[in-house]
Amino acid sequence: MLAKNQSPKESFARYVRILQDEICHALEALDGEAVFIEDQWNRDGGGGGWTRIMDGGRLFEKAGVNVSAVHGRTPEVIKNQVPESAAEFYATGISLVIHPINPMIPTVHANFRFFQLMDTEGNIVDGWFGGGADLTPYYLFEEDAVHFHQTLKDACDRHDPSHYPKFKDWCDRYFRNHHRKEQRGIGGLFFDHLRLSEDIEANSAHQSFVEDAGNAFLPAYLPIVEQRQSMPFTPEQKKWQEIRRGRYVEFNLIHDRGTLFGLKSNGRIESIFMSLPPTVRWAYDLHPEPGSPEAKLMDVLYQPKAWV
Amino acid sequence: MLAKNQSPKESFARYVRILQDEICHALEALDGEAVFIEDQWNRDGGGGGWTRIMDGGRLFEKAGVNVSAVHGRTPEVIKNQVPESAAEFYATGISLVIHPINPMIPTVHANFRFFQLMDTEGNIVDGWFGGGADLTPYYLFEEDAVHFHQTLKDACDRHDPSHYPKFKDWCDRYFRNHHRKEQRGIGGLFFDHLRLSEDIEANSAHQSFVEDAGNAFLPAYLPIVEQRQSMPFTPEQKKWQEIRRGRYVEFNLIHDRGTLFGLKSNGRIESIFMSLPPTVRWAYDLHPEPGSPEAKLMDVLYQPKAWV
Repeated sequence: MLAKNQSPKESFARYVRILQDEICHALEALDGEAVFIEDQWNRDGGGGGWTRIMDGGRLFEKAGVNVSAVHGRTPEVIKNQVPESAAEFYATGISLVIHPINPMIPTVHANFRFFQLMDTEGNIVDGWFGGGADLTPYYLFEEDAVHFHQTLKDACDRHDPSHYPKFKDWCDRYFRNHHRKEQRGIGGLFFDHLRLSEDIEANSAHQSFVEDAGNAFLPAYLPIVEQRQSMPFTPEQKKWQEIRRGRYVEFNLIHDRGTLFGLKSNGRIESIFMSLPPTVRWAYDLHPEPGSPEAKLMDVLYQPKAWV
Repeated sequence: MLAKNQSPKESFARYVRILQDEICHALEALDGEAVFIEDQWNRDGGGGGWTRIMDGGRLFEKAGVNVSAVHGRTPEVIKNQVPESAAEFYATGISLVIHPINPMIPTVHANFRFFQLMDTEGNIVDGWFGGGADLTPYYLFEEDAVHFHQTLKDACDRHDPSHYPKFKDWCDRYFRNHHRKEQRGIGGLFFDHLRLSEDIEANSAHQSFVEDAGNAFLPAYLPIVEQRQSMPFTPEQKKWQEIRRGRYVEFNLIHDRGTLFGLKSNGRIESIFMSLPPTVRWAYDLHPEPGSPEAKLMDVLYQPKAWV
């Protein structure tokens, strides 16, 4: 397929590092108190990453914004899913999760990545982009859900009008706690396998779309934080947030393919688990009162909704 | 193999109900404040259970002591692991997890169960007992670990001197967070597939051993609670307990076969997840100071130890 020098890997690796800087600076500026600390780590077998963590902020209880660029021999756990000639892999991406203190501010997750497989001569035998962004509110403000989806839809529409409906639907199907018959949150975008081909322009269109989606993250999320940051909340509302954070943990540990792949392929635990919320609760058989704000949230989690 | 009327299922089902009563009464008496509430539930397809939950006690933050007795068509998810003639299944057992408030008191888990498969005429085509009990301390008191293991070993030794070494080792291999290279706790017993055969006396010996192990639970655990209940603790020690409870969640959601089987076979979520701790924390890359009590615990979690 593609020769080594036609791979988008270097330019995309640069892009995710720049996006990491932009997002971390914007979150620090908005928080005003906490700053990110960076752990640079190396992977046995090739490559490494930059894990950036903020905790104990004015607004953000825990935020992780990771970039990694790893390579080496194709991990055993995916060998039966890839071409036999795929001796080596390369993967780079940004992955972030933000857990605010105030339950009126939603948790957000985003992830933009590129993966490629090479034969022993360095020729690319397969490669693809993937990613997405999704919102997990604890109290539902419909205008926030609309703003988040609209911002992502605008980024999609600049590339292909079929992207948003397809990737919104994919997101709803992916971020579902099947064992609870609940969505994890109110969705956003999820896409994968935007594949490289011999058509260099098509590859470049994929990359351009993924980078535009990445650039839409801050405008999609920050205005919601600004809007909700001064809202008061009660200890009971904080408790509800922690109960719902339990569902976040359930999704990530039971269903999330990225997490499970990381664990099976001996990834860096602390970077994989930076997505887990700081404080979490499980209560037995808790159901919100009908008509309560908590029940209003559950309505849109039992059945995904068209927001735009 | 065995005819229907030779099955130990009825007598074992009675046994686990009596054990549930004994354990709940003993825990209520020791707590002195909270009482268990019981949810009786029915399973679509056959049978049901009695889920008993205590929370907000003087000593026990959350305790669940469940009994179920379920039957029906063999679940799809195990069909490839059982004889083709196994049209119907029956399962009964007791399962309990106790999360104390005070981090000086360990969390405990125990489970004693019987499972059988029948052909369309009701003949037993396979059947076995399983179970165990294990302790998860947050601060290590070696005498508690010794007492817990010694009590279980005594129960084992009354039946077969090879039981304790075999089932202690099985427990250490089972309750391991492989992704962390850590044990979940300091172990105890784990056994499975104590199979029925045409030798009725051997079946009865299995049952008698499992019931003795079940009867050893209270004498193994209660003296530890009594010993530690009045020890003072700091908010930092509580936080350490909640961090370690996070490992408990990781084990149950990622590795525990019972939990994953429950989820896949559409079990009752609230009963399956009663094992999850009430309040939990995840912190980024936290390591106890060398030589601290927290580090002393970690030493025995990195490498299982012979306690008796």
